[in-house]
Amino acid sequence: VAWIEELRAALGPERVRTDAGDLRAVSRDASPLHGAPACLAYPEEREHVERALQIAAEAGVAIVARGGGTSLAAGAIPPAGALVLAFNRMARVRELDAEERTALVEPGLTNFALDALARRHGLRYAPDPSSRRVSMIGGNIATNAGGLHCLAHGVTTDHVLGVEVVLTDGSVAWLDALDAPDMRALVVGSEGTLAVVTAALLSLLPVPEATGMVVCGFSRLEQAGEVAESIVRAGLPASALEYIDETMLGVISKMSPGVLPSGVEAALIVEVETLHESLDEALATIEALVAEAGGSSRRAVGSAEQTRIWEARRTSGGAFGLLFPDSYTHDFAVPRDRIVEVLRGVSAITEAHRVEVVTVAHLGDGNIHPKIVYDGREAGAYERVIDASNAILELVLAHGGTLSGEHGIGLEKLGAMGRQFSPAELDMLRAVRASFDPEGILNPDKAVPLAGDEARRGVFAHA
Amino acid sequence: VAWIEELRAALGPERVRTDAGDLRAVSRDASPLHGAPACLAYPEEREHVERALQIAAEAGVAIVARGGGTSLAAGAIPPAGALVLAFNRMARVRELDAEERTALVEPGLTNFALDALARRHGLRYAPDPSSRRVSMIGGNIATNAGGLHCLAHGVTTDHVLGVEVVLTDGSVAWLDALDAPDMRALVVGSEGTLAVVTAALLSLLPVPEATGMVVCGFSRLEQAGEVAESIVRAGLPASALEYIDETMLGVISKMSPGVLPSGVEAALIVEVETLHESLDEALATIEALVAEAGGSSRRAVGSAEQTRIWEARRTSGGAFGLLFPDSYTHDFAVPRDRIVEVLRGVSAITEAHRVEVVTVAHLGDGNIHPKIVYDGREAGAYERVIDASNAILELVLAHGGTLSGEHGIGLEKLGAMGRQFSPAELDMLRAVRASFDPEGILNPDKAVPLAGDEARRGVFAHA
Repeated sequence: VAWIEELRAALGPERVRTDAGDLRAVSRDASPLHGAPACLAYPEEREHVERALQIAAEAGVAIVARGGGTSLAAGAIPPAGALVLAFNRMARVRELDAEERTALVEPGLTNFALDALARRHGLRYAPDPSSRRVSMIGGNIATNAGGLHCLAHGVTTDHVLGVEVVLTDGSVAWLDALDAPDMRALVVGSEGTLAVVTAALLSLLPVPEATGMVVCGFSRLEQAGEVAESIVRAGLPASALEYIDETMLGVISKMSPGVLPSGVEAALIVEVETLHESLDEALATIEALVAEAGGSSRRAVGSAEQTRIWEARRTSGGAFGLLFPDSYTHDFAVPRDRIVEVLRGVSAITEAHRVEVVTVAHLGDGNIHPKIVYDGREAGAYERVIDASNAILELVLAHGGTLSGEHGIGLEKLGAMGRQFSPAELDMLRAVRASFDPEGILNPDKAVPLAGDEARRGVFAHA
Repeated sequence: VAWIEELRAALGPERVRTDAGDLRAVSRDASPLHGAPACLAYPEEREHVERALQIAAEAGVAIVARGGGTSLAAGAIPPAGALVLAFNRMARVRELDAEERTALVEPGLTNFALDALARRHGLRYAPDPSSRRVSMIGGNIATNAGGLHCLAHGVTTDHVLGVEVVLTDGSVAWLDALDAPDMRALVVGSEGTLAVVTAALLSLLPVPEATGMVVCGFSRLEQAGEVAESIVRAGLPASALEYIDETMLGVISKMSPGVLPSGVEAALIVEVETLHESLDEALATIEALVAEAGGSSRRAVGSAEQTRIWEARRTSGGAFGLLFPDSYTHDFAVPRDRIVEVLRGVSAITEAHRVEVVTVAHLGDGNIHPKIVYDGREAGAYERVIDASNAILELVLAHGGTLSGEHGIGLEKLGAMGRQFSPAELDMLRAVRASFDPEGILNPDKAVPLAGDEARRGVFAHA
């Protein structure tokens, strides 16, 4: 193919791959969907990205910038014949300024590597998606990733001071948070549909003076909802409010026995970040709220114990693979005071569709993650999952919820955009997108539906 | 004029004005520039805005949405023949939800009125420009206004959860902070060039448990810079770090004698927000840092005393009118570690151009406001102000600063955009703007320069 040969000449043959094995690795992400890319390139310098975009744009080939490939929302699925730019070799920290608390990094750096480096300077990188050991800053920016701690510290866009981007014509721009209009904010969360990020200036936060946790168990999930609401209303310095359902607790106990409560309908991990002298009072207040709601609680202080709890929560994915061959993880946001009602509704829906659901949620933000587990080899199983997913989507929207809390709008939800946005709003999205990428070659079928796509029924219908 | 008659019919004659007196009132803002609008309309409902935009767009007439008219950057100056939409009659609080800590308000509400209402519920609206008693939420959004407290709480965009906008075709959209791409972030700070905001959902913060101040005096401004840097580096809970120069202290002492230090080169107002039990320690640490740098300090606790200090700082404008017939207030941001150097440079420049400068600055954010005072009746005075302003702009850019800290890019700085942005970046800005407003009729000559405008020399050259 001519454009691939041109790409090989421009980037060097060692950076361009077309073997079936290499292509298969980048045809999937962490969703159940897959695509069929034609070529994979590994840029090592911004100039490689510029050249690749020029060549692909000229040939009218779709381009998907790929980070860790951990999208649960099919945000990294390449269309047929696409060029995938994998950023694994562009992972440098160009500068870390501990006094200004900033880091200028390349998009292939993993979230965890950045945080680990920051901690050597008494700092941290706040957004912490569960996939942080493999997910990359570039993908975090594309999806505006959140994480366990976004209750206190916000999502990725709150920590991106500026981005260097390459446009489809190969030109380069620096988009700064201080600019007006703030085009940086537009690029963060745009699923790679506007431009390709080649560097980002990120803000780092000081490590908190003191942290502590209260791990709570409740016989009824309503109690967990009540406690979460009380904590937020009381203005307590909660940095995480993690809800874990009964089934999920069972899964976690397989990998990390004894760390989280058992024999309860719901657990809540409450973390506080505060000053040394205020920690005890904050934890005691939370314990009192838990007791008042009829729950049980255990205090965890000391970094080893707290790390053990977070690791148990984060590494639950591994246990899943053992227990359930396949799963489909959803991501919605609902108003905080509707969460309990929605979670009860999700249980009713999955029961009616004869599928099993396990749910974690960031209660403080109203962000719920029902994960439907199934065995894809069983005839009709995937179809039942899709039907249940569509019913959950309807339930969420009926309760004033939004399509995505933190995973973004990938291929799986493109058809649902018309449920949340009016035709005028979708026209604006399309016009803005076209102002960056007139031919629509950057990560097609994500974030911004083509005219008509949003009216398609059966959102979760791609196979 | 046909379009004005059509507007009168659509909105009702009581909402449309063309008298010279009415037009004169909206031909100026708080900058030295002025325009010549053809018509003034007072929308009372969103439908009035929709109709006005349709009628003006059809007639190809420029539209300037006007808030309190307090722009110091000529952001509200209407072009000749424009329609000004003044939002004074659209100032309702549609809903205040104290539990969710949100307020849905109309753009004509003043910043102060919103804050006062929030305080009845134990809450506050954090952005607090000095003009807050008259500046409106709509204008705050257009300029992404900051304020004395943006060190701790960020600027307007950090508090806008969503906006209802009307586009030039009269269509309505809700842009939400949770959307991806986040077009809300694009509209905030766009100087009214993309759409007209008709409602905003704002987040309110709890009133802090405890606040206190240390008012410091320094014989040399380097000491003030050193203390500010130490406070930020130590991670102290400073919510404001206000620098006031010697001349300004003299002005303030005319209105509010004895409130701030006298006989010093620089004063610093340091405010902390924290928990009751941590307040004393935080203030003592700041006092120690001040003493170490060779400054003097006075602690202020109790809300009456703290209010007295902020009022002295905020109401300095009144004293100006008495002492100096005219002034031109600038707004730049520079890296924090370059502030002292830049302030010394500003003094040298103004001295060389035989104009007088008084400066306040938000040191924590690197946001400086040199205010050049002059008598416009004196021949050649305004020209010297403009020359000095251009030299200050060069100085700021040479030190890695940006064109605006918080006042935005109004008419005065349009010609400077090419100094900060590359041609590719300006093309992006223009393309995005065109995707909202293809004819460029919304607040022309603000934020986004037409092709070529950015190359114009003599930025501060409009009269």
